[in-house]
Amino acid sequence: MRALVIDKTAASPVVVRTDRAMAQPGKGESLIRVRVAGICGTDLEQTRGYMDYSGVPGHEFVGEVVQSASVGLLGKRVVGEINAACGQCEWCRAELGRHCPNRTVLGILGRDGAFADYLCLPDCNLTPLPDSLPDEVAVFTEPLAAGFEIFEQTHIEPGERIAILGDGRLGAMVGLALTSRDLRPVIGGHHDNRMRLLASLGLVAVQEHTLRPGYDVVVDCTGSAAGLARCLELVRPRGRIILKSTVAANDRINLAAIVVNEIQVLGSRCGRFAPALAALESGAFDPRPLITDVFALDDAPAALQRAAEPSAFKVLLRVR
Amino acid sequence: MRALVIDKTAASPVVVRTDRAMAQPGKGESLIRVRVAGICGTDLEQTRGYMDYSGVPGHEFVGEVVQSASVGLLGKRVVGEINAACGQCEWCRAELGRHCPNRTVLGILGRDGAFADYLCLPDCNLTPLPDSLPDEVAVFTEPLAAGFEIFEQTHIEPGERIAILGDGRLGAMVGLALTSRDLRPVIGGHHDNRMRLLASLGLVAVQEHTLRPGYDVVVDCTGSAAGLARCLELVRPRGRIILKSTVAANDRINLAAIVVNEIQVLGSRCGRFAPALAALESGAFDPRPLITDVFALDDAPAALQRAAEPSAFKVLLRVR
Repeated sequence: MRALVIDKTAASPVVVRTDRAMAQPGKGESLIRVRVAGICGTDLEQTRGYMDYSGVPGHEFVGEVVQSASVGLLGKRVVGEINAACGQCEWCRAELGRHCPNRTVLGILGRDGAFADYLCLPDCNLTPLPDSLPDEVAVFTEPLAAGFEIFEQTHIEPGERIAILGDGRLGAMVGLALTSRDLRPVIGGHHDNRMRLLASLGLVAVQEHTLRPGYDVVVDCTGSAAGLARCLELVRPRGRIILKSTVAANDRINLAAIVVNEIQVLGSRCGRFAPALAALESGAFDPRPLITDVFALDDAPAALQRAAEPSAFKVLLRVR
Repeated sequence: MRALVIDKTAASPVVVRTDRAMAQPGKGESLIRVRVAGICGTDLEQTRGYMDYSGVPGHEFVGEVVQSASVGLLGKRVVGEINAACGQCEWCRAELGRHCPNRTVLGILGRDGAFADYLCLPDCNLTPLPDSLPDEVAVFTEPLAAGFEIFEQTHIEPGERIAILGDGRLGAMVGLALTSRDLRPVIGGHHDNRMRLLASLGLVAVQEHTLRPGYDVVVDCTGSAAGLARCLELVRPRGRIILKSTVAANDRINLAAIVVNEIQVLGSRCGRFAPALAALESGAFDPRPLITDVFALDDAPAALQRAAEPSAFKVLLRVR
């Protein structure tokens, strides 16, 4: 089958291969033919060495189940949660398979991902989609779920002052998730084109340097190791900083500021799909204006390059 | 009056002067004659440049009110909360004067401290002591309050696995505070003599390198910029790290570990005195075995040197 492959040992470390061995579902897993896949900042970080990943990247997708022991899934158009958990450990028993120490993660850890003709995931990870939800909307389920994850971790009161740092893909998803729960975040950005795009979705976006200290909650979606330091400048004493960016680099942090101002720093990663899908199905917002480019799978390296440009926003691969 | 003075511009930056101008209480403040003062890691950090402090250090004390507009305080033996707040701002109205942006802090920020014959604090910061509580016990109120502060910030369930990193003064206070609330922390240390001392108070202390990952809560009391990195190794996914150390240095942090494992990092500083005083008055534990050295105020520079040695634990200045 065709697949974009990261192979650090090859002359070209990121190439589309046509001879990748066909995906083979394990016990309890379905085989899924990918229809469309989304490019995320993590994919770009991986091409720079994040998680030292080798294999097929990609974890945002809509596909069709073509082989499954679950007859209810067969032939269905689905989205899929990306953490494939063992189902046996204390984490899995606590319904926190996203932190199962034995997990594989689609396109990120020990499991080939979605930038390919086919992928495999456990049946229990898959959610069939209603016909009313187009591929180009449903493909936002996974990144939007990462925005809704914040509500699983902390309670934000209506009226709290919230700043989101970063006018990119992640900032948009967090902005949409928070706004859908009647919160009023302001997004601090650097790119006029992106801020106009966010404004067209009803989000409030301003030049980042105009933000002033005193926010109750600051969400780091900068994708930069320097994001936390800026969050520490903007958050009020006893406030919360939510780290959404996963970056390969380490950064020097002024720990004394965290202690003296008793700041809560909360790491936040993937979320459950249910609240994200419910928000997309409700039609409260339409994320499709965020799609600036669609590439064929064969052009995936060019798509990754394009996704790294500030003038791009969401870049999709149309696989089939 | 006599006072230990940090003066970066002087030939000897830390000296006892006998000609320091007498402390002058402001409106609503009392004048306190210091009886005994404790040396804390923050004092040592200040002599190395922390907070860029110039003036009289020291913020742990027991003293006697010798001048006050509050007749109920006059002549009383007292301890005092160290943050002198404006009483007007939104923080003060929310009873969080410890974060008042206009505050001064005894011996730390804009207010001369306790390593002197006299100090001043607002009347509302002072708590009279019962005769039954000796100076050498009461002087632990302030550092012990920092341990109890954890309960103001997060809920810890009985049975949660808790590690405290650092077998020093701060680790001991956090250990005593948690133990007094029926929690069972293990202290990870490096110094046999300190660990024996902690064990003599009923605390569990082990060699730090023997700790294994999986703790629900890890409290950093290392006083080292490297403490957070070690906490990240030991805490379970979705666990909590509580930073108690204030250190002058910055450190490189692997932010991805915080995000991927959805760790909560909580800065924690001074606490209210009431729970600490209640614990000391209850006699549930006696902190006096932690006092390894008592110096006269005139020998304060030697006392600071001694407090920095691993074979010392709590070092007191007997001022009067």
